[in-house]
Amino acid sequence: MGPRPHVVIVGAGFGGIGAAHALRRADVDVTLVDANNYHLFQPLLYQVAIAGLDADDIAYPVRAIIRTPRRRRRGAPGNVAFRLGRVSAIEPGNRQIIFADGGTLVYDHLVLAAGAVTNTFGVPGADTNALGMKTLRDALAIRSALLRRFEQAAADVAAGRPLVTGSLRVAIVGGGPTGVELAGGLQELIVRVLRRDFPTLPFDEAGITLIEATDRVLGTFTPRLTTKAARMLERMGVELALGTGVAGIDPGAVVLADGRRIEAGSIIWAAGIKAGPLAAASGLPLGRGGRIAVDEHLQVPGHPEIFVVGDVAATLDGNGNGGVLPQVAQVAIQGGRYAGRAIAATVAAPTGPPPAPFRYKDKGSMATIGRHAAVSQFPNGLSLSGPIGWAAWLGLHLVYLIGFRNRLNVLVNWTWNYVTYDHASRLIDGDM
Amino acid sequence: MGPRPHVVIVGAGFGGIGAAHALRRADVDVTLVDANNYHLFQPLLYQVAIAGLDADDIAYPVRAIIRTPRRRRRGAPGNVAFRLGRVSAIEPGNRQIIFADGGTLVYDHLVLAAGAVTNTFGVPGADTNALGMKTLRDALAIRSALLRRFEQAAADVAAGRPLVTGSLRVAIVGGGPTGVELAGGLQELIVRVLRRDFPTLPFDEAGITLIEATDRVLGTFTPRLTTKAARMLERMGVELALGTGVAGIDPGAVVLADGRRIEAGSIIWAAGIKAGPLAAASGLPLGRGGRIAVDEHLQVPGHPEIFVVGDVAATLDGNGNGGVLPQVAQVAIQGGRYAGRAIAATVAAPTGPPPAPFRYKDKGSMATIGRHAAVSQFPNGLSLSGPIGWAAWLGLHLVYLIGFRNRLNVLVNWTWNYVTYDHASRLIDGDM
Repeated sequence: MGPRPHVVIVGAGFGGIGAAHALRRADVDVTLVDANNYHLFQPLLYQVAIAGLDADDIAYPVRAIIRTPRRRRRGAPGNVAFRLGRVSAIEPGNRQIIFADGGTLVYDHLVLAAGAVTNTFGVPGADTNALGMKTLRDALAIRSALLRRFEQAAADVAAGRPLVTGSLRVAIVGGGPTGVELAGGLQELIVRVLRRDFPTLPFDEAGITLIEATDRVLGTFTPRLTTKAARMLERMGVELALGTGVAGIDPGAVVLADGRRIEAGSIIWAAGIKAGPLAAASGLPLGRGGRIAVDEHLQVPGHPEIFVVGDVAATLDGNGNGGVLPQVAQVAIQGGRYAGRAIAATVAAPTGPPPAPFRYKDKGSMATIGRHAAVSQFPNGLSLSGPIGWAAWLGLHLVYLIGFRNRLNVLVNWTWNYVTYDHASRLIDGDM
Repeated sequence: MGPRPHVVIVGAGFGGIGAAHALRRADVDVTLVDANNYHLFQPLLYQVAIAGLDADDIAYPVRAIIRTPRRRRRGAPGNVAFRLGRVSAIEPGNRQIIFADGGTLVYDHLVLAAGAVTNTFGVPGADTNALGMKTLRDALAIRSALLRRFEQAAADVAAGRPLVTGSLRVAIVGGGPTGVELAGGLQELIVRVLRRDFPTLPFDEAGITLIEATDRVLGTFTPRLTTKAARMLERMGVELALGTGVAGIDPGAVVLADGRRIEAGSIIWAAGIKAGPLAAASGLPLGRGGRIAVDEHLQVPGHPEIFVVGDVAATLDGNGNGGVLPQVAQVAIQGGRYAGRAIAATVAAPTGPPPAPFRYKDKGSMATIGRHAAVSQFPNGLSLSGPIGWAAWLGLHLVYLIGFRNRLNVLVNWTWNYVTYDHASRLIDGDM
């Protein structure tokens, strides 16, 4: 690794990319590790599930990210390398990470940004009878499964067979931003696109049921916005099943805690995430929700050489009562940048004063519900909804989406969908 | 099916779509059947393999194709239905097709346009140790396999392990248009993109070896163009191994008939296609190359209700010496249209005179070799090569590509790739 300190970053999500970016000019060698060779723009993942965007529109090669134009202009080879591999364990005592294939990598500083996975909270049948919504593969599976149901139903109708009850219904468990965005998007796909694609199907039976254990959707938004969001969803035709937990998921049906049974050909679990398996395998002390406990500098107590950021970290919210920050993109981005800058500062001045503690700056939340409909909430109390909220959402996501080319493609796809009410990416993945 | 004759079209490739289009205004009910829910623009499949285009750019939902604007303007529901399913057999005596899931579909007229599959000609190891290049899945697998090899090599270098010999080499078997386009495109991907992505790898070991049994590439083109193509490939750095057959394919190496052994981390079989398995399972008499024999009206002798078009048909070239037309897009498109029009004419005037025999109109051939380099050959003797041939190729493919949105996306992707020398779709498919 040469004489320069070696920084290993595990995870090329928002946290890992943020840390790598902050270390770009530091006198260190950086190795960015991920099990996929792409960075996923998670906020638009639901667009792949609803056939609005292609997978490649929201995923960008990590190697293309780490070689920036600036680096090329300087002529230097850059200080960030990429390594494709799944990290299965960490040995803090030996300062090395272990790959699933047995390989190891020694670090001087470690940034753990390994992200989160779907959390089914032990609900019976959720793992096997519902589709997750966390990875690119998940989103493609949802798109394919839904389209397959409609194709099967069309074949049944053509052959004179009765439809399986609920074939054309999609049940979504979880009324957070992911569930709400999926519900709105899939409802529009069904009503505006599939209704025209499948003229022989009984569309009075088709639609979305959104199930949420609390009594409101988008529970982290203000009551005013949450009410608006619910009204928008209902106006679009989404059925809301609020205030009831899920007792279990059978093949083709969600069983609610109140005894109701919602028959659905496609069932999506969007009710929560938890720290990835590396948290438990790290041997580091865990905090809330199985996430790795960190101090106010995002460091592991007793291991100042290890920073943990994003969804895998139990980052204190700084209110002094032990509360932790939510598992959202902004926390990961800001945490990653903070960790990168802190390492850069330590390397530049090993005996300098410690940096100021991490302070999360809430930039607001947004959730889109459909064409012309979104809710946005800003920390200064401002909130937007309807077409203006939607336009704000659209612009912000385009600006944040990594890669000029991806941005152009997304713009083309969205404009096309907007003008034609079409969703063209509705290919069924895989062989029959 | 009602009182109208029922036309079943098996295959939504160029032949099937052509037939469906020609039947749009006929007084028939049409069912178009395919194992995938999309039409694949096969001429650009290699672009997916070389990471130049996304899968969705060259695949378009069949249901979106069969509901055209014209139909919507008329307000009629249209006469073409789609059925997703794999056809496993045909019962000409009962006038029905059998699906792999056991379902059946009865027809009055049948258009078989079931296409072709990779033909390994029984070469030992070709099925297991080489990647095919016929389906969308094939192209994605090539892209992923190649990128994985480079990632693995980078990990080996980082860990101080010696590289596996030939890791960074791609061997392509078959010097026809598919092999040549892949060779040029992959060589550019390696030289222009991967060399920057993988700064630690020894790129003097990286590159393409194109293997062709005859002594020239693009054997169906004029000797002048074939020589030009070979020169362009060599100038780009592609190694040509001409005039030698393949004795077998081992894991990681192609064994040539002359005893040479070409070690390659990625091996692609692009040496030929054959009629799909439905040809043999159809119970119909077969002609050249295992394709279904048809008369000069593209009908199966003794079964005027069955037309066979495209790659699955042994279509006579009309020269009277028993020669058959090549398995290319134009033959399928023109054959499909002919069959559709013939059925429409028969339905409109059952006692009318038979249509004129099918006459194939050769519109020329094109193959692109790289940036600014392509060869085009027209039936009037005109031939183009270099930048002009390339511009002609580009324009023609954009115009032919189905779907305005796809066209725009392709334009964006190509422009981006052209300006930046980048190929952004280089995501590795699947989990580690």
